[in-house]
Amino acid sequence: MTVVEAVRWSGEGDAVEIIDQRQLPNELVRRELRTVDDVCDAILTLSVRGAPAIGIAGAMGLVVALSRLTEDTREQFIAAAEALCDRIGGVRPTAVNLPWAMERMCGIARTTPGRPREILDALRAGATAILEEDRAMCRRIGEHGVELIPEMASVLTHCNAGALATGGIGTALAPIYLAKEQGKRVHVFANETRPLLQGSRLTAWELTQAGIDVTVLADGMAASLMRGGAIDLVIVGADRIAANGDVANKIGTYALALAARYHDIPFYVAAPKSTVDVKTASGCDITIEHRDGDELREWNGRLLMPAKASVYNPAFDVTPAELITAIITDDGVVRPPYAFGASGNSADAGG
Amino acid sequence: MTVVEAVRWSGEGDAVEIIDQRQLPNELVRRELRTVDDVCDAILTLSVRGAPAIGIAGAMGLVVALSRLTEDTREQFIAAAEALCDRIGGVRPTAVNLPWAMERMCGIARTTPGRPREILDALRAGATAILEEDRAMCRRIGEHGVELIPEMASVLTHCNAGALATGGIGTALAPIYLAKEQGKRVHVFANETRPLLQGSRLTAWELTQAGIDVTVLADGMAASLMRGGAIDLVIVGADRIAANGDVANKIGTYALALAARYHDIPFYVAAPKSTVDVKTASGCDITIEHRDGDELREWNGRLLMPAKASVYNPAFDVTPAELITAIITDDGVVRPPYAFGASGNSADAGG
Repeated sequence: MTVVEAVRWSGEGDAVEIIDQRQLPNELVRRELRTVDDVCDAILTLSVRGAPAIGIAGAMGLVVALSRLTEDTREQFIAAAEALCDRIGGVRPTAVNLPWAMERMCGIARTTPGRPREILDALRAGATAILEEDRAMCRRIGEHGVELIPEMASVLTHCNAGALATGGIGTALAPIYLAKEQGKRVHVFANETRPLLQGSRLTAWELTQAGIDVTVLADGMAASLMRGGAIDLVIVGADRIAANGDVANKIGTYALALAARYHDIPFYVAAPKSTVDVKTASGCDITIEHRDGDELREWNGRLLMPAKASVYNPAFDVTPAELITAIITDDGVVRPPYAFGASGNSADAGG
Repeated sequence: MTVVEAVRWSGEGDAVEIIDQRQLPNELVRRELRTVDDVCDAILTLSVRGAPAIGIAGAMGLVVALSRLTEDTREQFIAAAEALCDRIGGVRPTAVNLPWAMERMCGIARTTPGRPREILDALRAGATAILEEDRAMCRRIGEHGVELIPEMASVLTHCNAGALATGGIGTALAPIYLAKEQGKRVHVFANETRPLLQGSRLTAWELTQAGIDVTVLADGMAASLMRGGAIDLVIVGADRIAANGDVANKIGTYALALAARYHDIPFYVAAPKSTVDVKTASGCDITIEHRDGDELREWNGRLLMPAKASVYNPAFDVTPAELITAIITDDGVVRPPYAFGASGNSADAGG
């Protein structure tokens, strides 16, 4: 089974190699990022996307950019590292992983003793560690989640919480990859996920690359599939999880959860424990990003609606904890009642 | 308030004038259909669409085509009418209105005494009657439905069951047009309706033409709007209604009904009583048309998913009667328990 790698060191280790996700599914184009401009541009234009993958690309990109400055003095080198961390970290400030990764890298630059060459080696090791930790985290989510997937399962998912969004085998898709690895037969139904079509363009692409059968449907079709008995379980990712277990995820997730509940189908959320924000008490406290209406208004420059019409285009919705059968984290499977951050039930208590 | 007319006699009465719906919302192009080839082509290519509108266009098209044959003998003329009715009626055999309209026209041709000129006059009157009856039916649906729309209402709809699909002010949109006519303030939320985007392309267009505020959203966003308290009621059309009140309508309708139920929002279906098929006991007996996967697979020739992915693309889904607050017909508003065709509860009993 081949799982695609969204971000990796290039063969010579002197560049960051990414899959240009803007070209998918029409062409598999790998791009080598060799300068800080390359890195910032790739993140800004969504050539590389998904919160973990962006953090990894940023950290690795810093190393590549700094590798030309090893003749500088130690002070000059650290100052350059700080400036580059600031710049890369600010390209998409909303996702928590990118600023987190750049801050971690900046700390390494400041605290590693020795000359630029030694600091650069430490930074390279640090970036590789961020990648490897993410890869291991995905695998642990997969190991916990695969227990929930029966033989011959039909699994419905939404958006792309797969290998293309992480350093490893994804979050929502990790249990599916492990099921395939274990020889379980599994069929995935992927919502196309309007407006940006991450389901049809990315999820369907990476699953077919791994030889996993996938059927794409429009988002409004999922309930009819469930009514027909075609879906055994739903697994989606998460962008933020509140302390009470409410989950913010790609718009359209909530409608799926409602349909799953009506048809008595298990609805799982898969996410690293770092996605839980214990300072957010409930979904009501999560601010939802609203994006440019042109994402719905146009397609390849062609107008899809009259200019006078308004557009409602939130990027995320909130699914209340009461609709979530369990949350699959790298620490284990957590079931309701959810009380993250409290002394009782938490991801640590999961099994 | 200007409500667009999808089908009408052209100024001189020697052609059928339609709005070419393939060009919407980018351009308002009116086409004159002057031959049977024009008529068949317009129906086949969805330049004119919506079951009632197709029936009307077919009947009027027959008159235009026959108007060149008034020098024929009576026998030749009737034979030509029969052949044209067969041909037009067969262009889209699934929709019930088109064969029904052509059969009615054929009956007029056969039973009207006199010479071709007299028969043609009767056919012209017959086609006009089909148009006018449909127009009146839409208005009655609107009059019954408008009672359900409060002042300042936000109404969610799906697909296009509006003026563009009928000879009048539509079915699902009829109560909204009448609310506007009565001076009620109303805001419409229109699901874009993947894959063919009838909501963004057609519903949003005809409502803005009438000066009604409309906001377009992706189909997966409706549940989040409901959760936010933005929707007062849902009105959709119907393609077929079973005797027990189960409703087949455009794919995506069922998910809306589920979300409406969870949020305790009234969910109405608006349709002429002729949509009720008393021979169909329940939704289980309705065969769902599955359409070409390319509707989801491509956009303007550009591939949206990997070639290896399968596609699930049903045109309709079934919403069970238990989720439907009421059915708005031209005879009145019918509430559950639905038992169409039985001696008890029926559309006739509605108020």
